[in-house]
Amino acid sequence: MDKLRSWCSSPAAPMASSPCRGSEEVDEVVSAGWVIPVDTDAVLADHSVAIRGGKIVGVLPTADAIAKYKTNNYTSLPNSALMPGFVNTHNHSPMVYLRGVSDDVNLRDWLEKTIWPLEFKFCGPEFVRDGCELAVAEMIMGGTTTFNDMYWFPESVCEVVKSSGIRAAVGIIAIEFPFGSYGTGPDDYLEKGQKTRELFAGESRISWTVSLHAPYTCSDATLAKGKELSDKLNVPLHIHLHETQAEVEDSITQTASMSKHMSEEKCSPLKNMKRLGMVNERLVAVHMNWLTDEEISDLAQAKSNVVHCPASGLKLGSGMCRTADLLQAGVNVALGTDGASSNNTLDMMAEMRLAALLAKGVKKDSTVAPAMVALRMATLSGAKALGIDSVTGSLSVGKEADMISVDFGSPSAWPAPTVTDSAKGFDAVTHIVYASTRDQVSNVWVQGKCLMKDRKLLCMQVDELWRKAQEWGAKITEAKTGMASPPS
Amino acid sequence: MDKLRSWCSSPAAPMASSPCRGSEEVDEVVSAGWVIPVDTDAVLADHSVAIRGGKIVGVLPTADAIAKYKTNNYTSLPNSALMPGFVNTHNHSPMVYLRGVSDDVNLRDWLEKTIWPLEFKFCGPEFVRDGCELAVAEMIMGGTTTFNDMYWFPESVCEVVKSSGIRAAVGIIAIEFPFGSYGTGPDDYLEKGQKTRELFAGESRISWTVSLHAPYTCSDATLAKGKELSDKLNVPLHIHLHETQAEVEDSITQTASMSKHMSEEKCSPLKNMKRLGMVNERLVAVHMNWLTDEEISDLAQAKSNVVHCPASGLKLGSGMCRTADLLQAGVNVALGTDGASSNNTLDMMAEMRLAALLAKGVKKDSTVAPAMVALRMATLSGAKALGIDSVTGSLSVGKEADMISVDFGSPSAWPAPTVTDSAKGFDAVTHIVYASTRDQVSNVWVQGKCLMKDRKLLCMQVDELWRKAQEWGAKITEAKTGMASPPS
Repeated sequence: MDKLRSWCSSPAAPMASSPCRGSEEVDEVVSAGWVIPVDTDAVLADHSVAIRGGKIVGVLPTADAIAKYKTNNYTSLPNSALMPGFVNTHNHSPMVYLRGVSDDVNLRDWLEKTIWPLEFKFCGPEFVRDGCELAVAEMIMGGTTTFNDMYWFPESVCEVVKSSGIRAAVGIIAIEFPFGSYGTGPDDYLEKGQKTRELFAGESRISWTVSLHAPYTCSDATLAKGKELSDKLNVPLHIHLHETQAEVEDSITQTASMSKHMSEEKCSPLKNMKRLGMVNERLVAVHMNWLTDEEISDLAQAKSNVVHCPASGLKLGSGMCRTADLLQAGVNVALGTDGASSNNTLDMMAEMRLAALLAKGVKKDSTVAPAMVALRMATLSGAKALGIDSVTGSLSVGKEADMISVDFGSPSAWPAPTVTDSAKGFDAVTHIVYASTRDQVSNVWVQGKCLMKDRKLLCMQVDELWRKAQEWGAKITEAKTGMASPPS
Repeated sequence: MDKLRSWCSSPAAPMASSPCRGSEEVDEVVSAGWVIPVDTDAVLADHSVAIRGGKIVGVLPTADAIAKYKTNNYTSLPNSALMPGFVNTHNHSPMVYLRGVSDDVNLRDWLEKTIWPLEFKFCGPEFVRDGCELAVAEMIMGGTTTFNDMYWFPESVCEVVKSSGIRAAVGIIAIEFPFGSYGTGPDDYLEKGQKTRELFAGESRISWTVSLHAPYTCSDATLAKGKELSDKLNVPLHIHLHETQAEVEDSITQTASMSKHMSEEKCSPLKNMKRLGMVNERLVAVHMNWLTDEEISDLAQAKSNVVHCPASGLKLGSGMCRTADLLQAGVNVALGTDGASSNNTLDMMAEMRLAALLAKGVKKDSTVAPAMVALRMATLSGAKALGIDSVTGSLSVGKEADMISVDFGSPSAWPAPTVTDSAKGFDAVTHIVYASTRDQVSNVWVQGKCLMKDRKLLCMQVDELWRKAQEWGAKITEAKTGMASPPS
């Protein structure tokens, strides 16, 4: 039983004392059966990560780490893999409160009859703060260390990021229309977002995007303003794009519909954005379920980024991304859960598995999107899309220590990994991608700070999350019940 | 916090004494926040299930159950849903030992270069028994109470079913070719399988199928013998069918390939089986990724059963089943994980979610395969396919108590269900299908016996499973390493 730490998420035995008695002082050493940096294809057996000042200062064999470093804070996870935390590259985090409030209906009914009316009714700073808090708890418990958010009242999201310890890219949002108490239109939104950005300028865990809702809700003028701001601030331009077939076709034919882009150009929304100079290395295009070969080539040449949200695309019947073709063309493909009202979870482990499986299914080729590529899509590719890959996304010396451990201590992970090369037998990477679920994430660190230990959240009051979720749930249920039975 | 039992799989507080002080003696009463029988669309709030002699004797409001029944064995799960256990309707359970041994390669290489050579080398009664034991542990921990198995040495599978307490349909297998020490060919296999069936005739938790491997590995004569035996014993005929496009096309064109059916008929394998009288209510056809409208109509008319294995179909790049069209035509569609070497888990919660999502994606329609239908596919439809729906598959008075609880006590399930009608807000069924993972299965009963309680397996020695898995894992790794580096 040398490698068995536990068989069902039981806590690691506390160490009487740290074995790290070397000369170089560090804040923490974490040893694992396998360390997967993800910036290369390497899987390192019996390695350790050393952390100082929130940063990774060493990735080396455990025996060497013990000899070299001095710390009282030592964690040994011989039956786990240590890997970078997931980067959930597309979310509307506060919508976690709308999880399960409308399912199995068509997109139009979903949006117009339930989601938008509920958002118009409830969405404010408090809803956003409380919802984001619950979402962050769920994300940390599932191994997400960075998320990319597009939602109203981003100042509330920033507050939660600040207090919880997670990392986020927050959106300066814009849409053509006024929304409740948040703002009157694109100029107002962009100005408010910039002020929020200035307010949280000192927060090292918060980065920014310009988040335009979609071509069917943003005019050419708004797209151009978003581009200008993205250029000026040198931040990603995050946008829903080519989600449905109707969005593309109705734009090309200029057929009036809720999906047609607001532009009068008779072309696909992507082609229109190319015309506006927006298809560049800052573009973070979400969904992209409908793409021509030419468009894939354009994205590759421009070094644009695609965020694939497979569960949301399937659940809403929107389409299936040509992931294998994008990867083949060299496009940076990241993964996102989308909001919990269209998924219905923020489970990046499941999203990664689904992306790897679906890519093979769509291409009818079992060799595409192999496990290590899927792991990279779920981590480093997201950091790259958000422009923060010098800071996070892989376990590399010099980056901040955003990492998770994945436990192989239960029957569903056995035979446990025996080798580091998947060609030779059982390896940690295919076990994580194809056979693991989020509950196997046992520990989570961001900037070297442990946010979850042995599945216990250290950074939030879970009973408070419960209380607030049930309060909001009751209010939403009451409103929904009224909506479901309109006066006849 | 009235409804909150726990927020992270912590055990229920032990009851000082059972409140059930009525007049009718039963073995156990289990109360739950929501009871989902699945034989109708009903979701019953604050209901209880009463068990006597392994059978369900009552499904009624908790207050009534407490007044009516007398038992010291009372379990209260106010923050959980109680539902029938999953029926994993296609598995090769011992292949759990080949989990992750070959991934991201094409089907031919996967089978010919890794899976078959390893099976030929290792497969014997001990491999099958040990592997099946691990698979059963994984399945119970994921909420599966019945599995349908196709593998060599079924007597070893029966032994594990008998000792573990799970329920299974075991295959009397046949394939055209000799296999190691198990048998010399179809006649020998069918005879051996029947003897095994007689040996375990007294086991109420074991039912049988005739399990023919596939049309590309069974001649017309073998298909006919299988049909004859299925008729004689009145048991399902379980077969891999229309898994790949090549299987169908090469059969129609009679193009020599590993996928072409062995028959010389120039038609699809299904059409050939129809010719042989095999398309009837006993047919349990697995995969069925490639079907014409006419074939779907034939299946519906014949009341045949389809087992959809979405993860396996995607992972091997085989195809995507037309689930929505099958359901629309009235075909009974069940779900299976397939073996863990092509999935790589035996996780029915994930399989159910994937089936529901993929059906919508394939049909480009978010309204198909709604949550309750998906839940039924994963439970009652499997029992129906296996011919045991009078015994299991739903929480109905008179059936055996094969059931699981799904816990909503952690942030990923919040807001927790508030209503029983999904049109009105948050309900248990969509939470289970779209937002839950297998670790939320907290308790499992088969025939009224509790096999897992508060996530602790009661029916198996997990440290023994670990020891054996690592021993076999080491042997398989050694063999695989040799295969990966053939002498040049």
